[in-house]
Amino acid sequence: MADPIRFEILGRSKRGLARLGRVTTPHGTFETPAFMAVGTRATVKGILPPQVAATGTQVVLNNTFHLMLRPGEETVAAMGGAHAFMGWAGPILTDSGGYQAYSLADINDIDDDGVTFKSIVDGSRIRLTPERSIHVQNRIGADIIMAFDDCPPSMDPDSGPTNQSRIRMAARRDAERRRGYDHAGRLRLANERTVRWLERCRQAHQRPDEQALFGIVQGGTDLDARTWSARHVTAIDLPGYAIGGVAVGEPHEEIVRVTRHTAPLLPEDRPRYLMGVGYERDLVAAVLAGIDMFDCVLPTRNGRNAQAFTRAGPVRLRNAAWAEDPGPIEPGCDCPACAPGLHGWTTPDGRPISKSYIRHLFMAGEMLGPILVTLHNLRHFQRLMLDIRRAIAEDDWPAFAREWPLAAGAVPAEVWCAPASGGIPPQG
Amino acid sequence: MADPIRFEILGRSKRGLARLGRVTTPHGTFETPAFMAVGTRATVKGILPPQVAATGTQVVLNNTFHLMLRPGEETVAAMGGAHAFMGWAGPILTDSGGYQAYSLADINDIDDDGVTFKSIVDGSRIRLTPERSIHVQNRIGADIIMAFDDCPPSMDPDSGPTNQSRIRMAARRDAERRRGYDHAGRLRLANERTVRWLERCRQAHQRPDEQALFGIVQGGTDLDARTWSARHVTAIDLPGYAIGGVAVGEPHEEIVRVTRHTAPLLPEDRPRYLMGVGYERDLVAAVLAGIDMFDCVLPTRNGRNAQAFTRAGPVRLRNAAWAEDPGPIEPGCDCPACAPGLHGWTTPDGRPISKSYIRHLFMAGEMLGPILVTLHNLRHFQRLMLDIRRAIAEDDWPAFAREWPLAAGAVPAEVWCAPASGGIPPQG
Repeated sequence: MADPIRFEILGRSKRGLARLGRVTTPHGTFETPAFMAVGTRATVKGILPPQVAATGTQVVLNNTFHLMLRPGEETVAAMGGAHAFMGWAGPILTDSGGYQAYSLADINDIDDDGVTFKSIVDGSRIRLTPERSIHVQNRIGADIIMAFDDCPPSMDPDSGPTNQSRIRMAARRDAERRRGYDHAGRLRLANERTVRWLERCRQAHQRPDEQALFGIVQGGTDLDARTWSARHVTAIDLPGYAIGGVAVGEPHEEIVRVTRHTAPLLPEDRPRYLMGVGYERDLVAAVLAGIDMFDCVLPTRNGRNAQAFTRAGPVRLRNAAWAEDPGPIEPGCDCPACAPGLHGWTTPDGRPISKSYIRHLFMAGEMLGPILVTLHNLRHFQRLMLDIRRAIAEDDWPAFAREWPLAAGAVPAEVWCAPASGGIPPQG
Repeated sequence: MADPIRFEILGRSKRGLARLGRVTTPHGTFETPAFMAVGTRATVKGILPPQVAATGTQVVLNNTFHLMLRPGEETVAAMGGAHAFMGWAGPILTDSGGYQAYSLADINDIDDDGVTFKSIVDGSRIRLTPERSIHVQNRIGADIIMAFDDCPPSMDPDSGPTNQSRIRMAARRDAERRRGYDHAGRLRLANERTVRWLERCRQAHQRPDEQALFGIVQGGTDLDARTWSARHVTAIDLPGYAIGGVAVGEPHEEIVRVTRHTAPLLPEDRPRYLMGVGYERDLVAAVLAGIDMFDCVLPTRNGRNAQAFTRAGPVRLRNAAWAEDPGPIEPGCDCPACAPGLHGWTTPDGRPISKSYIRHLFMAGEMLGPILVTLHNLRHFQRLMLDIRRAIAEDDWPAFAREWPLAAGAVPAEVWCAPASGGIPPQG
């Protein structure tokens, strides 16, 4: 059986456990550390695939949950799979649908076999099991598919500072049903289920030489639970592993703590994917902990809501201060809005698109506002990844920190200095 | 005083009064007969200016009414005018704001001096007069600006088959106020006002060597009123003239009748602009009547509503028939959706974007649906104009009719054969 993907490590940083790599898939390669653009319903909202590619994005994420409900996996399969369906020739990853089933839907039942929930499209009763998730992902046809896991709240919903109210609500319903919520017990159950379900996913996988199945380590913020999960998940031989249940509302320090503990427990020679993370500082810290792949809705979702990312911090483009500001979102940025001339866009006197104009678009409810800021934000994150990869290749993090002072400055000092305890020391 | 625009007639068709031309403006040239894309709030909804240009669009229309309310003409001026504001280096035309004041707003008062209405943005009381409209258009800075006219209902609102309910409602309010609506009288008043206001527009115009002021002929569907208006409007020497009040709900035959009557009454050596028209058959018939410029919301507005224009007729992309249709919107079309490979968009196996995918985008409420169909529709209209210009240049309308059988077939026979009565016979 041919391996569906190949992971090459091309370089390592002396700082931390960062590695530079390349993943080769049936639909081309992507460089790691990689940031995947989120294309929930087989579209990065408002952005044509060639525009996505022009931001430097090499791999796109689609959501199994959304596509199985609409248009349905059989439609995607009939159109030749996700790549042909959305017109994206590069690598695609699908999640398992589990996270959305837990966080978006009305859960009717969770048991050892799977999850039953109400469709957000038509209210019908939907059953998702490890076998069903993998079948759907086989039909959608992404290059990397994710195990179906039990995704509990990362912290005790009655005490922890989580901002994901839906997950908390689901946990509370869960708690009510069980008449007495035992967070440690719930995590243990989720951990055990996740391993049992992973084995079922592996066995259900019908296209193992075309699609790489990644296992997911859970365990919330309990490091012992993470250790247990990592040991049992990685005992199942798979082309890659992910850390799940991290970016669900914890502060930066918790993300760093869990990632630094868990990443080194994953096999050195497989890509490591930190799901749903995150802000720039989170990405830098996670790369230094040995993470290779990321996805996050921040550039696209916040962009649609008029928040631009810049190296000097976020810019809220609805702010009245920009009403007559002729400057671009971020001087020096090479995105289509900040540097239209680099993108075949002739403007009068070669001027950039002004914050004044973008504010006007948002105030008027015009689609072009979300489009321009999404393009800017995706480019912002891809430039961050480019600079991270350069920092690893040249082992020059001080140069990186000069370019990204806020992101680098927010990373705890110990992350820069030494491998995490329990980690595998850098090689090569 | 330098002329702000130059109009050259490059060729004439032996059929009808069609002419091939070129308009040179301070921001470049456009070929005529020209179709202008509507960019109401200084944006063609969802489409970046380089994408607009790639459809073959050479001139864009902005709406004075919308821009004066938001962001305000002083903001547009402070940003360097409409071209710099929206990042469009080519020619721009602004309407006067009159049509929207009549059709969109709650009119408080119409008198000989101007119109008072309620802002659709914040409900405040806004006064629009010929002087104010021209001042606003001077500040916005388009290459072609339009006279502020009195825009009455084209037909008696109590009898005519108009589908523009808002105009009808405004007329009814008008009628109630006057206790006894006299349609002929209202048209006469509007005609007389339009001429008086045109003279005031001309005198108020502060940038006559940078912006070409076009007069507008009114008169509804009453050909005598059109004749009277054309005579008095063209008595004021201006760089171009428009026919207004036509595309407000009349059937094709009425549009053709009024246009064939009125267009030849406009000076031969100035561009003639038929405002707000229309469907493909309307454009063909109007070109044959001697019209040089068009604008219409059909490709953009209908595109956002999932209606694609094709040579075989409209395609409604939400239709369940397309759920698993792998074909493009229109085989042979060279737009980004139908022929992505021509637009730097690499798809798997070079496949076009399927109707199945576009339907999915609309069903899911995804922005990319409106974007793709708008791009297709704009290209459809620009290909129509290209083929119209070729038909004039080569004097080969039969070839045109083979390419556009539905559009050409709907044009009344007499339009193809002879100049309209009263028209100036084709020269050269």
